[in-house]
Amino acid sequence: MDATPSYLEQLIAGGLLLPTGVAGLYGRSQIFERVVEAIDALVTRTGGGDGAEVLRFPPGLSRRDFEDSEYLKSFPQLAGTVHSFCGDERAHREVLRCIEVGEDWTRDQAATDIVLTPAACYPVYPVLARRGALPEAGYLIDVQSYCFRHEPSLEPTRMQMFRMREYVRIGTPEQVTGFRALWLERGEALVRTLALPHIVDVANDPFFGRAGRVLADSQRVQKLKFELLIPVNSTAQPTACLSFNYHMDHFGQIWKLAGRDGATAHTACVGFGLERTALALFRHHGFEPAHWPSPVQSVLWPSA
Amino acid sequence: MDATPSYLEQLIAGGLLLPTGVAGLYGRSQIFERVVEAIDALVTRTGGGDGAEVLRFPPGLSRRDFEDSEYLKSFPQLAGTVHSFCGDERAHREVLRCIEVGEDWTRDQAATDIVLTPAACYPVYPVLARRGALPEAGYLIDVQSYCFRHEPSLEPTRMQMFRMREYVRIGTPEQVTGFRALWLERGEALVRTLALPHIVDVANDPFFGRAGRVLADSQRVQKLKFELLIPVNSTAQPTACLSFNYHMDHFGQIWKLAGRDGATAHTACVGFGLERTALALFRHHGFEPAHWPSPVQSVLWPSA
Repeated sequence: MDATPSYLEQLIAGGLLLPTGVAGLYGRSQIFERVVEAIDALVTRTGGGDGAEVLRFPPGLSRRDFEDSEYLKSFPQLAGTVHSFCGDERAHREVLRCIEVGEDWTRDQAATDIVLTPAACYPVYPVLARRGALPEAGYLIDVQSYCFRHEPSLEPTRMQMFRMREYVRIGTPEQVTGFRALWLERGEALVRTLALPHIVDVANDPFFGRAGRVLADSQRVQKLKFELLIPVNSTAQPTACLSFNYHMDHFGQIWKLAGRDGATAHTACVGFGLERTALALFRHHGFEPAHWPSPVQSVLWPSA
Repeated sequence: MDATPSYLEQLIAGGLLLPTGVAGLYGRSQIFERVVEAIDALVTRTGGGDGAEVLRFPPGLSRRDFEDSEYLKSFPQLAGTVHSFCGDERAHREVLRCIEVGEDWTRDQAATDIVLTPAACYPVYPVLARRGALPEAGYLIDVQSYCFRHEPSLEPTRMQMFRMREYVRIGTPEQVTGFRALWLERGEALVRTLALPHIVDVANDPFFGRAGRVLADSQRVQKLKFELLIPVNSTAQPTACLSFNYHMDHFGQIWKLAGRDGATAHTACVGFGLERTALALFRHHGFEPAHWPSPVQSVLWPSA
């Protein structure tokens, strides 16, 4: 038996995460939240001069929009659909009986119109498509929300519910590739000011099944997604804390996002994993932010 | 046909809420979020001197803990269980085929270990119970999270996903009833400084079925739950924006929360519906916070 506590065990013993009995689902302490808020605010300061439109969505999106997004083609195993009890009093008594005796009571739960958000930008595209033709300059959107991915794990960096902060760009291919190139620079600079070791690499997403291997290869070859990786759980397998995604005209086609000239919009987004970046800071600088290197504290809490 | 736009239609036309195509599920504009954040911060200033422990939970809790909570006895119709695809490649092809032809693809989604949080305090009790016997002074906890209730509605005050800020007290009957009495005063005073008309009344929760009527009567007779109601959608049916709940030893019994002397803990909570309070402010003071009465602005943004 390995006597060294895992990073998750250390985080729980240190009071930063509170176990709920479900792998990948944790409460957060005040210190943990202060760090998450500081990272979020740092991202705002980094991108704040660009005039992004701030939108905030609950942690769910329309099931219809989710079906249209084709997420289920690539990652059916990660998605979370929300189901509810829609029965009568007799069915209700049966639910209670099942719970009483430890039988499965969830089989008759019916799917609602809501699916949990898999990435913060998913609700953005259909909502903006409803506004009609894109403005000349396209859109630049600032979003943040809790996301869900069904991948129970004992790695603290692989939570089932976590927050993602994103900037989303919608416009011409030039506009969106320029945006992504800018944020690749900004993202690396930001992580450097936090004194975190990192590399940038093409992404390796867990596409489902054999057909998924083709999608994964294509993603890599076309360099559609870069990740900024920081060693957190291990040096050999660093954790993707930021991602830089170019969707080409995938979402533009699906939701008929187009300019006044009728050209289908391209989209890109940069995503900050807020919990993952916080966990990287705790791993490299310790569990007590007041003892972090002062340049790092100054970057995160400039007015303190 | 009624030509007067509903309050929901006005909120959408004014850009404060963004429709998603699902009743009760909306995006929020920057102005809406600024108001929600200001209310949240005002609650913190109101209760900040009490030394509450700040905890933050994702919008879901352990299904096992949820089953234990007995929420399903009272409100099965409101709960949201999270389900995922757990099949093989063949089942995956069937999911995609169903979506393609518009058939139901959700029937084989399997329940995960996670249920959406119905009220912000639900994750608190089992997590604290794991710490063992209560400290002498009991617990005072500060929580806030997105909650889910399956009640699609065109009333903007009845969202399926919304945020609730709570203080939770766990201790002796004297400690928790004193806490509730204090917050009944504080809550009314807070709403008065926001210049919102209001009344306080015993609650009228939508308990399920015929058996539910007994629970509802008992809740009223024992005055276990008070609500602070503000006219938002209509004067005749004002909206519960704050609630003040005394659970007696219900949660204490379930999770064996007890003091060192072995006495089962009592619990109480005060909840602030953040979206509802924001909607009340927009209703009574207009859609532009910069034009709100200056005493109200000063209360919400004291350092501005």
